[in-house]
Amino acid sequence: MKLYYAPNSRAVRVAWVLEELGLSYAVEKFALGAREMREGPYLSKHPMGRVPTLEDGEITLFESGAIIQYILAKYGNERFVPNTQSVDFASYLQWFHYAEGMIMPPMNTLVVETILLPPERRTELNVKRSSKLLRQMLTAVNTHLADKDFLVGSEITAADFMTGHAVIMSNRFGIDMSAMQHLKGYAERLSSRQAFKKAEAL
Amino acid sequence: MKLYYAPNSRAVRVAWVLEELGLSYAVEKFALGAREMREGPYLSKHPMGRVPTLEDGEITLFESGAIIQYILAKYGNERFVPNTQSVDFASYLQWFHYAEGMIMPPMNTLVVETILLPPERRTELNVKRSSKLLRQMLTAVNTHLADKDFLVGSEITAADFMTGHAVIMSNRFGIDMSAMQHLKGYAERLSSRQAFKKAEAL
Repeated sequence: MKLYYAPNSRAVRVAWVLEELGLSYAVEKFALGAREMREGPYLSKHPMGRVPTLEDGEITLFESGAIIQYILAKYGNERFVPNTQSVDFASYLQWFHYAEGMIMPPMNTLVVETILLPPERRTELNVKRSSKLLRQMLTAVNTHLADKDFLVGSEITAADFMTGHAVIMSNRFGIDMSAMQHLKGYAERLSSRQAFKKAEAL
Repeated sequence: MKLYYAPNSRAVRVAWVLEELGLSYAVEKFALGAREMREGPYLSKHPMGRVPTLEDGEITLFESGAIIQYILAKYGNERFVPNTQSVDFASYLQWFHYAEGMIMPPMNTLVVETILLPPERRTELNVKRSSKLLRQMLTAVNTHLADKDFLVGSEITAADFMTGHAVIMSNRFGIDMSAMQHLKGYAERLSSRQAFKKAEAL
């Protein structure tokens, strides 16, 4: 397998899963937002020139959620996914999809408006609106985590790789979590895992 | 089962799947953006007061992608999902997740800036940026559909319920598809299905 990767991107999620499973893979690394991603040969792998993309033999696919589901179905040996017949399965799906459905849209805006755009093209109103929305999305996760260490059941699942990573990124990109104690502890619990550290340090 | 629904929302996707499978379900209908969704008892079902939410016995879950995966795993009898061992499975996952990963973030912004905000609070720059990004996301789907009727393989799959619905919504919310002929035909093909029509007319 080969992973197209950039630091502080959704590619970290995929590397995290690969590390948790102890799988070996090659890495092609870009700087976040690098021009060479959006121009030239990489566009044949990903039409928008984003990361992650995974190659596995003849297969090339993008979308972090898709790649993680693919890796777990093919190489996971049922790890990190509750059985479809279990009571946890519905909750697992909900928190897996929560990352892209709820957290990432306002975070995308926040990253664009505070990092990617040149200062003269940024809009303070958009920063304010997206920060407010992002805090609302994170507050629901904080409340959910009041009585548990991970999003679903008592063990880490792929819902944590998706939504947990989105939580950690939110914190890195400036969302103050001091009033969200459960979330803060959760982010620390996840980011202290060896597999996460390796995935971040590629 | 009971579906919390609003017209022109992601709840249509869930109703569409239920109709395609011929399952029976109750519906509680809101007006899109209705205040009663974001206040009062519905917040105990969905912390942000959005739709869809599905109740199935003891289970309550939100996120359209999660609900669709749940319904198909529990009631689908392997319909609308390629076998995990098939060559189509990776592509299926990619196009399933494409809806929320790529299309919906700019569409969310477009809907907020052209419909939900009062005119005096709208920003022309945000309309322009989100329309441009949305067209870019749709162009990739148009290109992919050059030689096929559905996103994956020769039959409709749940990837079409997700990304196909996002395509149809984009068109409804003002994205001109006259230069994207494959996409236009695809949207017409999907929206002429009986199950889709029923889901829209709840």
